[in-house]
Amino acid sequence: MNKIVTFGEIMMRLGTPGNTRFEQSNSFDATFGGGEANVSVSLSHFGLESMHITRFPDNAIGHAATNFLRSNKVDVSGIQYGGERIGLYFLETGGSVRPSKIIYDRKNSAFDEIQPGTIDWDSILDGATWFHWTGISPAISKGAAVCCKEAIDAAHQKGITVSGDLNYRKNLWRYGKTPQEVMPDLISKCDLLIASPWDAENIMGITTDNPDNEKEEILVYSKIMKQFPKVKKIINTKRTTISSNHNLLIGQLFDGKNIIKSKQYEINPIVDRIGGGDAFVSGYIYGNLILKNNQEAIEFAVAASVLKHTIEGDVNITNVEEVNNLIKGNTGKLIR
Amino acid sequence: MNKIVTFGEIMMRLGTPGNTRFEQSNSFDATFGGGEANVSVSLSHFGLESMHITRFPDNAIGHAATNFLRSNKVDVSGIQYGGERIGLYFLETGGSVRPSKIIYDRKNSAFDEIQPGTIDWDSILDGATWFHWTGISPAISKGAAVCCKEAIDAAHQKGITVSGDLNYRKNLWRYGKTPQEVMPDLISKCDLLIASPWDAENIMGITTDNPDNEKEEILVYSKIMKQFPKVKKIINTKRTTISSNHNLLIGQLFDGKNIIKSKQYEINPIVDRIGGGDAFVSGYIYGNLILKNNQEAIEFAVAASVLKHTIEGDVNITNVEEVNNLIKGNTGKLIR
Amino acid sequence: MNKIVTFGEIMMRLGTPGNTRFEQSNSFDATFGGGEANVSVSLSHFGLESMHITRFPDNAIGHAATNFLRSNKVDVSGIQYGGERIGLYFLETGGSVRPSKIIYDRKNSAFDEIQPGTIDWDSILDGATWFHWTGISPAISKGAAVCCKEAIDAAHQKGITVSGDLNYRKNLWRYGKTPQEVMPDLISKCDLLIASPWDAENIMGITTDNPDNEKEEILVYSKIMKQFPKVKKIINTKRTTISSNHNLLIGQLFDGKNIIKSKQYEINPIVDRIGGGDAFVSGYIYGNLILKNNQEAIEFAVAASVLKHTIEGDVNITNVEEVNNLIKGNTGKLIR
Amino acid sequence: MNKIVTFGEIMMRLGTPGNTRFEQSNSFDATFGGGEANVSVSLSHFGLESMHITRFPDNAIGHAATNFLRSNKVDVSGIQYGGERIGLYFLETGGSVRPSKIIYDRKNSAFDEIQPGTIDWDSILDGATWFHWTGISPAISKGAAVCCKEAIDAAHQKGITVSGDLNYRKNLWRYGKTPQEVMPDLISKCDLLIASPWDAENIMGITTDNPDNEKEEILVYSKIMKQFPKVKKIINTKRTTISSNHNLLIGQLFDGKNIIKSKQYEINPIVDRIGGGDAFVSGYIYGNLILKNNQEAIEFAVAASVLKHTIEGDVNITNVEEVNNLIKGNTGKLIR
Amino acid sequence: MNKIVTFGEIMMRLGTPGNTRFEQSNSFDATFGGGEANVSVSLSHFGLESMHITRFPDNAIGHAATNFLRSNKVDVSGIQYGGERIGLYFLETGGSVRPSKIIYDRKNSAFDEIQPGTIDWDSILDGATWFHWTGISPAISKGAAVCCKEAIDAAHQKGITVSGDLNYRKNLWRYGKTPQEVMPDLISKCDLLIASPWDAENIMGITTDNPDNEKEEILVYSKIMKQFPKVKKIINTKRTTISSNHNLLIGQLFDGKNIIKSKQYEINPIVDRIGGGDAFVSGYIYGNLILKNNQEAIEFAVAASVLKHTIEGDVNITNVEEVNNLIKGNTGKLIR
Amino acid sequence: MNKIVTFGEIMMRLGTPGNTRFEQSNSFDATFGGGEANVSVSLSHFGLESMHITRFPDNAIGHAATNFLRSNKVDVSGIQYGGERIGLYFLETGGSVRPSKIIYDRKNSAFDEIQPGTIDWDSILDGATWFHWTGISPAISKGAAVCCKEAIDAAHQKGITVSGDLNYRKNLWRYGKTPQEVMPDLISKCDLLIASPWDAENIMGITTDNPDNEKEEILVYSKIMKQFPKVKKIINTKRTTISSNHNLLIGQLFDGKNIIKSKQYEINPIVDRIGGGDAFVSGYIYGNLILKNNQEAIEFAVAASVLKHTIEGDVNITNVEEVNNLIKGNTGKLIR
Repeated sequence: MNKIVTFGEIMMRLGTPGNTRFEQSNSFDATFGGGEANVSVSLSHFGLESMHITRFPDNAIGHAATNFLRSNKVDVSGIQYGGERIGLYFLETGGSVRPSKIIYDRKNSAFDEIQPGTIDWDSILDGATWFHWTGISPAISKGAAVCCKEAIDAAHQKGITVSGDLNYRKNLWRYGKTPQEVMPDLISKCDLLIASPWDAENIMGITTDNPDNEKEEILVYSKIMKQFPKVKKIINTKRTTISSNHNLLIGQLFDGKNIIKSKQYEINPIVDRIGGGDAFVSGYIYGNLILKNNQEAIEFAVAASVLKHTIEGDVNITNVEEVNNLIKGNTGKLIR
Repeated sequence: MNKIVTFGEIMMRLGTPGNTRFEQSNSFDATFGGGEANVSVSLSHFGLESMHITRFPDNAIGHAATNFLRSNKVDVSGIQYGGERIGLYFLETGGSVRPSKIIYDRKNSAFDEIQPGTIDWDSILDGATWFHWTGISPAISKGAAVCCKEAIDAAHQKGITVSGDLNYRKNLWRYGKTPQEVMPDLISKCDLLIASPWDAENIMGITTDNPDNEKEEILVYSKIMKQFPKVKKIINTKRTTISSNHNLLIGQLFDGKNIIKSKQYEINPIVDRIGGGDAFVSGYIYGNLILKNNQEAIEFAVAASVLKHTIEGDVNITNVEEVNNLIKGNTGKLIR
Repeated sequence: MNKIVTFGEIMMRLGTPGNTRFEQSNSFDATFGGGEANVSVSLSHFGLESMHITRFPDNAIGHAATNFLRSNKVDVSGIQYGGERIGLYFLETGGSVRPSKIIYDRKNSAFDEIQPGTIDWDSILDGATWFHWTGISPAISKGAAVCCKEAIDAAHQKGITVSGDLNYRKNLWRYGKTPQEVMPDLISKCDLLIASPWDAENIMGITTDNPDNEKEEILVYSKIMKQFPKVKKIINTKRTTISSNHNLLIGQLFDGKNIIKSKQYEINPIVDRIGGGDAFVSGYIYGNLILKNNQEAIEFAVAASVLKHTIEGDVNITNVEEVNNLIKGNTGKLIR
Repeated sequence: MNKIVTFGEIMMRLGTPGNTRFEQSNSFDATFGGGEANVSVSLSHFGLESMHITRFPDNAIGHAATNFLRSNKVDVSGIQYGGERIGLYFLETGGSVRPSKIIYDRKNSAFDEIQPGTIDWDSILDGATWFHWTGISPAISKGAAVCCKEAIDAAHQKGITVSGDLNYRKNLWRYGKTPQEVMPDLISKCDLLIASPWDAENIMGITTDNPDNEKEEILVYSKIMKQFPKVKKIINTKRTTISSNHNLLIGQLFDGKNIIKSKQYEINPIVDRIGGGDAFVSGYIYGNLILKNNQEAIEFAVAASVLKHTIEGDVNITNVEEVNNLIKGNTGKLIR
Repeated sequence: MNKIVTFGEIMMRLGTPGNTRFEQSNSFDATFGGGEANVSVSLSHFGLESMHITRFPDNAIGHAATNFLRSNKVDVSGIQYGGERIGLYFLETGGSVRPSKIIYDRKNSAFDEIQPGTIDWDSILDGATWFHWTGISPAISKGAAVCCKEAIDAAHQKGITVSGDLNYRKNLWRYGKTPQEVMPDLISKCDLLIASPWDAENIMGITTDNPDNEKEEILVYSKIMKQFPKVKKIINTKRTTISSNHNLLIGQLFDGKNIIKSKQYEINPIVDRIGGGDAFVSGYIYGNLILKNNQEAIEFAVAASVLKHTIEGDVNITNVEEVNNLIKGNTGKLIR
Repeated sequence: MNKIVTFGEIMMRLGTPGNTRFEQSNSFDATFGGGEANVSVSLSHFGLESMHITRFPDNAIGHAATNFLRSNKVDVSGIQYGGERIGLYFLETGGSVRPSKIIYDRKNSAFDEIQPGTIDWDSILDGATWFHWTGISPAISKGAAVCCKEAIDAAHQKGITVSGDLNYRKNLWRYGKTPQEVMPDLISKCDLLIASPWDAENIMGITTDNPDNEKEEILVYSKIMKQFPKVKKIINTKRTTISSNHNLLIGQLFDGKNIIKSKQYEINPIVDRIGGGDAFVSGYIYGNLILKNNQEAIEFAVAASVLKHTIEGDVNITNVEEVNNLIKGNTGKLIR
């Protein structure tokens, strides 16, 4: 059976209920999520074995976070406990033309303070078929960056498929290193990238005047592959934001030559868009491992992502049958 | 004054709050509903006298179900108490492209175990002007089927108008009889059917290649009327499902010659579509009894159904003034 | 710094949660609001100094109302305490084609029974740059009408800008006076009116066959200005109601010659439309005081109003940066 | 079968959730209650036929109040509709040493404005065995006082048992009459009084230095009976308030000679003490009609009242079996 | 490491919120629990390995039940999926002198219909140190009884400690067998019983006139041990019910000669007493496996049970440190 | 009018609802509190002028915290904005014998990083009559300690009464200084201390074998006053913890010679004990400023504290009339 390992921070998410604003709310809905763990959770719901590596404080909040993963059938046996706090983010869900807002409070978290050399990647990756990371981890702290590199190196050495979601965030990267210094080494050992022209510009300095022109876009991705020859596929989504509640979504895959596009979906209303990108990645990993070809994989990936937008919380609680149902065209008929 | 009697099972509905999935929810919103009782409730809100016959367990849950009907001004004096449980259904409300899901848990309910000959239809139907049943009752159990037949026979004999909503459900019909064996006798004493080509095919074997072609549809309904000459009208709705939250709805009536169509309504967002069909039936019964002609009746029926989609729960808490308001074109202006 | 003073009743609003109907609800969400106080609150969120004058009962409910204003940074030092009750209104929020409904219960409120001569307008308006009132106050009771006149007179004498939102409500005006008797005197001292052809007809008897024709509309406004030469600008909004949840909104300003129109916004779904008009007024006051020209002011006003529709409660909890964000085109992109 | 008719105002009760204070709460739990209607509801749960006469506004709030009674199986066919508002009261539930607080907002209610001669007592009381009123109604307004008198006179003439709960409230009685002017006439036609020495002093001027001395108390009740010879029994409860949550309760009955006392109950914690007195009255009415003797009746009455303290809302949702269970000594063993 | 295996039904529990009665509630709090699974959950929180064997329907409700166990770190790999429904019970939480009420709806559940021979006990019990069952399973259905016997036989053969909680319920046992026919064989292979004189009378016909007399009680337990010589210890609790919210609890153990008693605890208020007995059993199993002697074990057992009464739901979410804290005397000092 | 200035950190408090444990909860009730701000809030509810100085992040969470103070009528004009986060604490409310638990997450907060010299104490304290601080501030960080010292020095110089609540917490004091190094200087300028023998031992090294012996206790306080001659009074409370919900409370004051004790109160059940000590301090400050003598002041202080235990949240929303009500003996009689 396939086993996927993911690595990254998990935060407690504190969201105002319904559409209330931060200033109006006297309670928060609490859940947990993180770009990489979201992938593990989704894959376990697709029936694959998944394991997530992270670091939690050894207190009731950290244990609740572990229980969250455990209840979603993610292998939690490799989680490290230590540090003083879990990272948090506050979420205010927008409505119509009012955007959602996130306030991060993740500094000095248990994960932020993770130490190099403390994770036994060799035994964790034993028997794994896939390792997934994102550009958030190397951006958080030196320790997280080194741990991430250790994992990628170990996976690379074991011949395990490696995927990296570049996910450039300019507000992170405050520990003294730049993405240009850190990322290329990590990317060079990846088989699959989740990347946009925006990431290419900020991380690799590959610029284009018109990223919306498909030819230009192909040029960007080709340059990435030239620079990082192990990378064989680049995937991402194209989102059109009509309003907070109303988006259009397409998935696409560059196979080195062409861009393969999925069907476009209309999502209205969006229940919760956080984790939509992670659901896309997990859908693609499932597709890559189980389905026949790139087209099927990218269709599965985008449909999985679309369904995530209809589910509360960061993680995609959807099974394969439900994704296929959507692909086959049931966009809302009552199921008895 | 008009008095309408309905007969059928009422279930407790346990719905996850908001858009939460079954796996996410640690509470359920509870209400009660059933295809026939929903009609009684709606008619009482339209100002008519209505009475519902069913069977509940003689415990606090059964009493709560009775109170629900009572608070909606339905005559509950004919309800039978006995058996061990109330039927249940679990509802997960979808969102956008994610469909709503129902899990039934209705076997061995008090109604399922109702016994023939235990209801005094003669006195219950005394003074009634209309009796309404659905194809659910004869599908549940032999006892329910026989009780339903007893009611229809009694109504027929008393010259009371009888309407039947065929409502074919292939997951029911597990007690040893087929719809083909049971239903024709019941249908033969009806004045009005709520029926679709799909029902016609499954219950009467009347098939058509293209039910979406109006001529074909007329042919189907004509064949039904030929087979069951007491039936003078066949009504139903045409629903276009854009998404879980966004439907289009038309009502139509076949008068033996032509299909009379209502205006088409756009419903977006749908608050709760369960009971939308029952609201249509009750709207039509009201229209048939009170309004001037088929066109007005079918307009009233579809507008009532559309309003039901905006109301939480199975039952249609709407009065005649509100339905007329919608028919006159107020689709959302604040009423002070 | 600019200081704006507003005068008018504040009611407790008791709204059914979500989409539940009055008959279904066993709890109410409680907040406070009133057409003039809503303007003060919004202006304080725009960073201006604002003060609201009203009358509350001297009990825990009245104090809670004061706290509500205070938490929104409105100067409450001029509030009068007395009387026996706070006015109330019950709100049922509609959905899709079902309209929202308001049931007022405001008679005999503390504000309703306010007495002439009890407010020291001279000291309250000291240092103020703007005074705002609406046509609700003179419609409630004789006492409120006289107090409103006292305020307008004092402001006029001090050379403070006066704005009046005519807001004709035929269900009010029950204390023995007609708007035709009371309003002209108040309007005559205003610099700015918020008024529609509907108000013009009902209050001033200025009629037009076709208020939707812009030329006709200009004629109406010109007649108003002729009758009330101090009035230099008339503003209002044009709302298209597609459904309870889906409206289109334009703002416009008549400068004595031309109608200047804002961009049209689509709002879907509406979270809460109560107070949308007041948000428009406060946006315009901000624009008038701070921005460069009429076009900018009216764009700010309508964008502020549109944002109000996405926020729960009567008041517009939005800052200048958020309004500008919408004006610049961010209609829903997540802000991290 | 016994049929009991009650007459009096029903208010909407708006209670802060849990232990939140008025200043802290942004929602209210809503229910309905009134001293006389609470008796009707309780009696219907005891299996007797009951009917309540009151006046509601003819709007959705008034209809919701009717539905509340209807769902509790109270006959609502005699309710009058009219007026503009329902009376309200706000409730803050205390905790430990902090007392609960009530803020009334009942003036100008539909009931307050009820008109003499508008209720057909003759037909309403047809077939009734008991009529119950309280001293609240004659205290509210002249109209209510006269209607109450009409009812008592009609019941008296028909030979129906009349009970009156004196319930003196000094904050009411503001319409120009004193209790001394109005009450004696009403009391003179009663068979049973619910009265304390406090009521005797305030309404009849019967004073005592030491109401806690049983001999003195007997003297007071004897004087009442002398003054009102139709009165054959006087009942009431003795409450010891240890804290908001912890009370002791005894019921007692004066039969003209002796005071018969019930067992004393400890109630800790109290879930909701509103309506505890009304539950006592309904328990006594049940006991008087159905049980063997005064001792059994007073034991049933106090046990019913004690159970009310464990139930949320104004009304006592308890059946006879549950009251007997408590009388037999089950003070908390789980019932499966 | 110790591994404990438990076997039995898990039901969905639907509880009315707070103190609301069944007739008042329009929502239910949902959780899962069952006498044997509660033991497994508690043991996993004590840091031991535990595994629960049961049968769930293969639908979203069944999966949610599995997730519940999984999040509590119970090994779910042996759960069987099939059947049509999960058993339910409705819970109304009492208050003060009003008892809590349970309405069961567990017939025809997936577990009820479990088939003999379908569980591979040999591999499930591999490596286990303890097997626990209760008298509920053999009372439910023939299939459950046989499966339970298979498990006990396999455990017995492997030399695994077996504990049985007799838990006689007269409302079960409806499939045609009596406890006298079925239980002795199961009991004969147990090392530890949880049993009261009441169980002894109903299951084994061992009677006593005065079970509250300790000498008599010792006689009863001695007779049990004589009849079932493998049984070496009998434990149970003594509960004094002051009210629904206020209980006293003692644990005791009969070692064949003497009754060893724990300290008595006062619990006031009780948050949730369901599962209190199961918490006692799990506390004892922990004590038996880890602690030094009978006294320590029974003290741990009763303290664990007492803590369960302070925790919502059926299962005891308490760790060893917390139980020891209580044993050491911290009955409520804030822990920072 | 008296004006009291307080200085210290305010945290967001995230509490699990009702009695749910951290591991069970998927939402948190949010409020704000801090030992010094709690004093300011309480004093403003007592009708005095109060002002709080703290530092919040300049984001929506920080603004919500400011609004919280503002709605409680605390002067917020001296609050400093900056830094990245607000300190948090997670609260799990215990029940019966289960203690409440707090998990702090306050490091690196805006207040923690406050810089010396950034607060203009001279103008802030202008016109003040009282300055209050606690031992938390000097324990948090060097910056906070220095700011606290600046405030005390300024107050001392201006002749303003200074009170300090020693409040020793061994888990704080992690920035490199010990309380012995920092505190004496601060204490030496205080007029009033809130201190226990425990504080005396840990901060000043004044030990006693038997702090529960009143003579020993007097000795401790006398030594403190000898060491710090400006200190004229030492107050504190004596709490007996029967359970999480049930405490006894006495207040006491040492005037240099004797210990003056208040009445003892029983609090059962406790709604929320957080902030009980701060309520005591504010009650004493009120008493010291307004009441006649030490006995009255300490009675007011403890009654205020007792009432706080019945109110949700950190702050004491109680007015003088309510405190006096309790002092006069109303421990729970309904107030209409």
